[in-house]
Amino acid sequence: MTEAPAGSLDAADRPVGVFDSGLGGLTVARAIFRRMPREALLYFGDTARVPYGSKSPDAVRHFSREAVHYLYSQGVKAVVVACNTATAHALHVLRAEAPVPVVGVVAAGARAAAAATRSRRVGIIGTAGTIDSGAYDLALRHLVGGEAVKVYAQPCPLFVPLVEEGLGDHPAAALIAAEYLQPLKEMAVDVLVLGCTHYPILAPLIAEVMGPEVILVDSAEEAAAELESVLAAHGLQSWRVESPTHRFTVSDLPIRFGSIGSRFFGDSMGRVEQVHVEGCLSEGPALW
Amino acid sequence: MTEAPAGSLDAADRPVGVFDSGLGGLTVARAIFRRMPREALLYFGDTARVPYGSKSPDAVRHFSREAVHYLYSQGVKAVVVACNTATAHALHVLRAEAPVPVVGVVAAGARAAAAATRSRRVGIIGTAGTIDSGAYDLALRHLVGGEAVKVYAQPCPLFVPLVEEGLGDHPAAALIAAEYLQPLKEMAVDVLVLGCTHYPILAPLIAEVMGPEVILVDSAEEAAAELESVLAAHGLQSWRVESPTHRFTVSDLPIRFGSIGSRFFGDSMGRVEQVHVEGCLSEGPALW
Repeated sequence: MTEAPAGSLDAADRPVGVFDSGLGGLTVARAIFRRMPREALLYFGDTARVPYGSKSPDAVRHFSREAVHYLYSQGVKAVVVACNTATAHALHVLRAEAPVPVVGVVAAGARAAAAATRSRRVGIIGTAGTIDSGAYDLALRHLVGGEAVKVYAQPCPLFVPLVEEGLGDHPAAALIAAEYLQPLKEMAVDVLVLGCTHYPILAPLIAEVMGPEVILVDSAEEAAAELESVLAAHGLQSWRVESPTHRFTVSDLPIRFGSIGSRFFGDSMGRVEQVHVEGCLSEGPALW
Repeated sequence: MTEAPAGSLDAADRPVGVFDSGLGGLTVARAIFRRMPREALLYFGDTARVPYGSKSPDAVRHFSREAVHYLYSQGVKAVVVACNTATAHALHVLRAEAPVPVVGVVAAGARAAAAATRSRRVGIIGTAGTIDSGAYDLALRHLVGGEAVKVYAQPCPLFVPLVEEGLGDHPAAALIAAEYLQPLKEMAVDVLVLGCTHYPILAPLIAEVMGPEVILVDSAEEAAAELESVLAAHGLQSWRVESPTHRFTVSDLPIRFGSIGSRFFGDSMGRVEQVHVEGCLSEGPALW
């Protein structure tokens, strides 16, 4: 067992904040505590305003600032923005204002895709907001170098409601997946980034449509690895011996909350708290 | 031309407020100004927090109170709650606090269904929130009398995203409609209430699945008729000669706003204003 660095125990024992537009980010929370079982997590899902994927960049930035402001108020030592749309539209703003390190999911997914591609033809699927932002495209070009990579992006707006309704195995989901993914097949991508936290639930279907030669990248594992590096770099890793206590908070306890939550989380989430984050920014309500 | 009643001109010239969770309520707005072309409308769509259909009754009540509070602040003479989920969860609260008459869509749809059914076997489709509320069931039993009517209700949560993505004609929509509607076909309903403002867009598909003997009820026309009666009863009908000016306001201008809006509205909506209603209630932010 590595020894704890002196002087950083107090900060290091604070929880890691994980923020998502809803419950999809629980896949990221799960990846974090499987990789770093000593870290306490404080999850916040903005279930009152979900989804973010079709909303304006300004609205997503405003909602995201309120969410991380809540996490800061609870004393988190770092924040993971588990939502691809929030990362795409808001990460730069959140980082500029942040008192703690902030990790997003886009760079992590792009790094995994850059490492995995042989043909340098990479596909990205996500919400309309994530795709329109061009964030993955920019991150991949930055990593691989300008013209050396071809990025093909496709919004898949029906995938989130299909997953939330538990219809991922329905024949209608297969029809919709075939239609969405056909352009990416035609472009002969060899890597496909699942650029939305809901999509890993559809991975078997997506893999079947794309064929066995296409590698699927799930940003959750990559984001957990990036968080580990960032905590280490800041001397913020927890060295506690006892099991940490996780907290799960949401802005609404929606209809059929339990069945949707367990679809992402696997384990029981225990008690889930409702918290109010609307209007929590100090400047108060305003046109954003 | 009937003469205007004396003394009510000022109030009567104020606009009618129309509130929906998003843009689906534009079908109701259209029905109102086709029926009453002298009435000025002020539409508010809560596009920042749409959809309401899967959110908790408490969240829907809170959002709805903020929305109508905004409409009151703009001097409306009456409010139409065009959203079925908001009507189902919030109408009683909104009416208890309202300074002006408030019309919902559930009672209007239930009245039309009660008038149309011969077998007294009525089907209702809507969001999970609307169906779980039991509001249509209650309204129909009240109208037709306790045991005399059989109500069969079915949530259809994928219908809204299918319409919003313009996939109403896609084969996947037909598969999903067949699955959702099968239980209602088995119950041999002779009337089916389209209990969500998005569903009239899918009426041809729903009619094909249900068969020609089933009458489809669209609450928009019924709600417009109810509004006309209510305005007349309160002496609030507009007698203006010039064409009224309509205003369209939303809490967010989401991605692909124009294409979605025109799908519901038909005509051009002109300029759409973004307004901020979160936290506008006098008691300020609180756990609702």
